[in-house]
Amino acid sequence: MPRAWTLAARPQGMPRSTDFAIVDLPVRDLAEGEVRVANRWLSVDPYMRGRMNDVKSYVPPFQIGAPMEGGAVGEVVESRDAGLKPGDMVQHMLGWRDEAVGPASAFHKLPLLDVPPQAFLGQFGMPGMTAYFGLLAVAEAKAGDTVFVSAAAGAVGSTVVQVAKAKGMTVIGSAGGPDKVAWVRSLGADAVIDYKAGPVAKALGEAAPKGIDVYFDNVGGDHLDAALAHARPRARFAICGMIDVYNDAKPTQLKYLARLIGNRVRMEGFIVSDHMGRAEEFYRDMGAMLAAGTLRREETVHDGLDAMPDAFLGLFSGGNTGKMLVRV
Amino acid sequence: MPRAWTLAARPQGMPRSTDFAIVDLPVRDLAEGEVRVANRWLSVDPYMRGRMNDVKSYVPPFQIGAPMEGGAVGEVVESRDAGLKPGDMVQHMLGWRDEAVGPASAFHKLPLLDVPPQAFLGQFGMPGMTAYFGLLAVAEAKAGDTVFVSAAAGAVGSTVVQVAKAKGMTVIGSAGGPDKVAWVRSLGADAVIDYKAGPVAKALGEAAPKGIDVYFDNVGGDHLDAALAHARPRARFAICGMIDVYNDAKPTQLKYLARLIGNRVRMEGFIVSDHMGRAEEFYRDMGAMLAAGTLRREETVHDGLDAMPDAFLGLFSGGNTGKMLVRV
Repeated sequence: MPRAWTLAARPQGMPRSTDFAIVDLPVRDLAEGEVRVANRWLSVDPYMRGRMNDVKSYVPPFQIGAPMEGGAVGEVVESRDAGLKPGDMVQHMLGWRDEAVGPASAFHKLPLLDVPPQAFLGQFGMPGMTAYFGLLAVAEAKAGDTVFVSAAAGAVGSTVVQVAKAKGMTVIGSAGGPDKVAWVRSLGADAVIDYKAGPVAKALGEAAPKGIDVYFDNVGGDHLDAALAHARPRARFAICGMIDVYNDAKPTQLKYLARLIGNRVRMEGFIVSDHMGRAEEFYRDMGAMLAAGTLRREETVHDGLDAMPDAFLGLFSGGNTGKMLVRV
Repeated sequence: MPRAWTLAARPQGMPRSTDFAIVDLPVRDLAEGEVRVANRWLSVDPYMRGRMNDVKSYVPPFQIGAPMEGGAVGEVVESRDAGLKPGDMVQHMLGWRDEAVGPASAFHKLPLLDVPPQAFLGQFGMPGMTAYFGLLAVAEAKAGDTVFVSAAAGAVGSTVVQVAKAKGMTVIGSAGGPDKVAWVRSLGADAVIDYKAGPVAKALGEAAPKGIDVYFDNVGGDHLDAALAHARPRARFAICGMIDVYNDAKPTQLKYLARLIGNRVRMEGFIVSDHMGRAEEFYRDMGAMLAAGTLRREETVHDGLDAMPDAFLGLFSGGNTGKMLVRV
């Protein structure tokens, strides 16, 4: 019997395991044009926290009691569509479950790149595109820029570090704890701040004495304020995530916000789906970096559908290096 | 004997009158190419507070004991330059004093527009250009947009209201107290919020139930947070001033900052001098609005050089409607 995770209750603040419930999915025959996919890899991503609130946003809220959704990679096991056949590996958004059924148009064959299938949930998927277009299109980062990126050990941040280095930028990452710091440094970052070791603003001032041209924000809060404190004239901030506030109703406190004015800083929020039309450019450029041997990738893997809530909650406690995944 | 105001001490927080001292200026003969100008009107502007701190910024800090500077309009009374002759009215930056002496290149004849000379310190000067280019160039506001502007009764804000209306936008202003609210309404604003009467975010939600496309920020703080709370997708914020933090080391508290992401909001700081190269376009367009009878202007005037500190301090206590000026 296929199963799926549902939202049992809307979390208040940090979600708890009791906010999730696993249910059996009805087994049904395929209609014409539909496929059945055995999911192999499921994604957990910070943005999913937003969908757990009953708030209108760029993606609709999860409904209580209904199967949740999210990125997934699986294998077609049954097909009533001419375009997909059993054995095809596909990516799709019917995650949080072990089997997905739907119209073939909702499932996309994996691009032909020499990476394992789960990479299309990470560096070669939504988090990778977020990094790529956030850095190059939103922040308009270019060779010679000094780039600061928070959560640099995460799926998005670690790709920002590597794309930025590949494009000739100086990169300062921030990560929590010596292991992650060492890993980010191994990706090529010129300097890495351990945000658990002291105030970010001070550390950033030491790492970038001439200031930063670009900030790629995954966390908000202290990191954003530090970036404001050290922004150079005409600095561009791509605001991608604010893990700091997803689970917290506390306001963000910014001491250096007025620096925006004198330094003509531009802060811009974005969501990756605005850039999906440029996916081919992303695969081509990332494929070239892959072929050049300059891309490294790390995963934190939980096993089994039952582990989904734990994997998700781990995102907010710094539990992952690289992409957080569940293997089913 | 000509006199000038100097900074006697660097203010901590809100400046006090004891932070300023008036001194005699040495009388000296003109060198070749210099002019002597009797100042008629002196400007006080919020940005001057920043120059009172010993902090590197887009304008250098005032030096303790040295005459301060600022916008001024005056009459040439003596000239050793072929381009300027006694009787010419000029604008320049040697304010905070009753007589200015310097090279003719530092003094600019007033443009030929049918407004009184002091208007070139306000609506037809730096505050007007700030409003014009902040709205149209930085925020890229266009006909049909809903524009929110804080400090809408001030020199900059009142011009934003009128330019926005002239360009076919819907305008919501914020001002403090019934008199200012009434004045902003008389400028053509579609709705005016009295920020002293209740929470700005709630009032803005009522005034703009469909949200705002543009926010012109003169104050920061609660107003900025309210604008974030009600930003529509792809909203643009021109960040012009943060009167809220100029005198205050308290951090800005933003509850709605993460809205930047889902709504792809762009916040951009700017300073007017970046747009000075387009001054001709500004005079032409504003001149046309003036000729069409659609521009209104208000001044709050203090009399005499001795009144400069009071006029300046009044900027931070809501003491002005329209442009704050000192007549000498």
